[in-house]
Amino acid sequence: MVQPCVIALDVMGGDHGSKVVVPAALRFLADNPHVTLILVGNAEQIDAHLGDASRERIRIRPTTQEVAMDESPSKALRGKKDSSMRVAIDLVKEGEAGACVSAGNTGALMATARFVLKTLPNIDRPAICTAVPSMHGHTHMLDLGANVDCTAEHLFQFAVMGSELISAVEGVARPKVALLNIGQEEIKGNEQVKQAHELLARSGLNYIGYVEGNGIFLEDVDLVVSDGFVGNVALKCSEGIAKFIGQSLSAQFRRTWFTRLAGLAALPILKSFRRTMDPRRYNGASLLGLRGIVVKSHGGADELAFENAIYIAEKEIRANIPQRIGEQVGRHLGVEPQRETA
Amino acid sequence: MVQPCVIALDVMGGDHGSKVVVPAALRFLADNPHVTLILVGNAEQIDAHLGDASRERIRIRPTTQEVAMDESPSKALRGKKDSSMRVAIDLVKEGEAGACVSAGNTGALMATARFVLKTLPNIDRPAICTAVPSMHGHTHMLDLGANVDCTAEHLFQFAVMGSELISAVEGVARPKVALLNIGQEEIKGNEQVKQAHELLARSGLNYIGYVEGNGIFLEDVDLVVSDGFVGNVALKCSEGIAKFIGQSLSAQFRRTWFTRLAGLAALPILKSFRRTMDPRRYNGASLLGLRGIVVKSHGGADELAFENAIYIAEKEIRANIPQRIGEQVGRHLGVEPQRETA
Repeated sequence: MVQPCVIALDVMGGDHGSKVVVPAALRFLADNPHVTLILVGNAEQIDAHLGDASRERIRIRPTTQEVAMDESPSKALRGKKDSSMRVAIDLVKEGEAGACVSAGNTGALMATARFVLKTLPNIDRPAICTAVPSMHGHTHMLDLGANVDCTAEHLFQFAVMGSELISAVEGVARPKVALLNIGQEEIKGNEQVKQAHELLARSGLNYIGYVEGNGIFLEDVDLVVSDGFVGNVALKCSEGIAKFIGQSLSAQFRRTWFTRLAGLAALPILKSFRRTMDPRRYNGASLLGLRGIVVKSHGGADELAFENAIYIAEKEIRANIPQRIGEQVGRHLGVEPQRETA
Repeated sequence: MVQPCVIALDVMGGDHGSKVVVPAALRFLADNPHVTLILVGNAEQIDAHLGDASRERIRIRPTTQEVAMDESPSKALRGKKDSSMRVAIDLVKEGEAGACVSAGNTGALMATARFVLKTLPNIDRPAICTAVPSMHGHTHMLDLGANVDCTAEHLFQFAVMGSELISAVEGVARPKVALLNIGQEEIKGNEQVKQAHELLARSGLNYIGYVEGNGIFLEDVDLVVSDGFVGNVALKCSEGIAKFIGQSLSAQFRRTWFTRLAGLAALPILKSFRRTMDPRRYNGASLLGLRGIVVKSHGGADELAFENAIYIAEKEIRANIPQRIGEQVGRHLGVEPQRETA
């Protein structure tokens, strides 16, 4: 028997706001009868986008403010206490929602979530984690931009958090964990990475060593750990080259009437290929290390993509991620596990 | 009238050694009547691979040692004074060759080149630079792994070197230079990147600001500057995802008899697409900042790829890259330009 759960959605966040979030919510509800969604944002806009749709398992929490996509995290935190983003996170803090999802600006979301929810014991810094498609299905990466400079201990904590997420949500007993590094022997890595390597090698994690950038997509690894600068560049690079390849391929098929004809024949294959690679199917990054579940959707997400982020939030609620991470971090650092409630 | 020039090739370097380097040399010579190549390595192997081919404009410089692909740079430097790699670099130092090309291990090549040739005045560290295909043709990136930790001044010097390379070799008057960074406003970048941003904004370079990882492939930029850790990860990531996409696409076309048929129809397009993306056409990374020209080929390069690296070496000889970089770095740092000879 599936337990009912509640997820708060920041309706105003992202490039498209209510226009995308409300339809995504309706799609999600249609397939998930045990979930209630709280739509947090401008009541009028929510109402308009709900239209005649059934409002069963929908609650509306009106707010008066929005966090702009380019707003500074500190300004959002200090000045926007009735923003849809802030209130969605507050609902998690107060236990009214088991998780929240926002497509709003990452810096503001992380700063607000950290301020409101606080980090788990023994976690110095929360990190952002997401999955990317790879030769072996998919690979999780973290951190993706929350922490620009990291110590070896931070990288180690990231590894524990990511490993636990994968283990809990995907049922992989001992996820394969790797450190992102560069390939030249003697000058391999900076000091932080080398020290993190030592910590991981001694840990109880299923640490398989270093991978290079190509390994994220080609090697049999479940989690690739890096600092937020490197992780962000890696993720954005792969998005960039995928887009570039997609557009170049389309251009090739559009060149002449003959290539257009060939493109027509190849259409079903190209479509199925695009489905496999579809970044929307991977939308939804987890803010790990907090005393509550926060999922970040891509700012430009469409309905399908945002719906995917809601699925991730639901999985994390069911897996009780913050508590599990809290316990695991304690265990791996050799301190008494503490029971944390999300 | 094209001036004759001489290029030394490390025949034993790379995964395939003489089997690839000698045929690549023959291909190159057939199209470049003004170039003489010195083949440096095991004389017997070179002889075997030359076979009946014309030996016009070929000189053989026999050596007795090889640097292994996994050998430590310091060991290679101390213990392998008659290695094909070392001797090829010595030939540049002695002025017998205008440049050398090696597919050998990057760490050893950089360490040896730096020891033998020395860095240019006002350059603290040499850097590795290569081009990658992009929406606007191609983009140069540096550093790609020589320097793991960089100060703002290092990044600035990289920008000057890369800009001058592009300007000289490609005839772009004022190459567009960008710094690789991550996208979140408040926490944008680490200290080094922020300070390098200030230095570049005040410089005479055509600095266009920050780009994110996707910008390398999507934005109209000629040079993307980063430290060697980030640059290496970015490059390897893009190689990884390109390979993954290529293989996934092939797999889609092989699924059923129908998709195979469609694949047949699409074959010319897919081939032309592969040509555009072919990493071999981009093979050849420049070690910039040295008092001589050294080009690094990918270790796994085939004939076509290695030949491309020889073309890059030739272009750099004709453009007199070390001297131009020496002058430009002096100019941008506000010190008297010094005439350096390669």
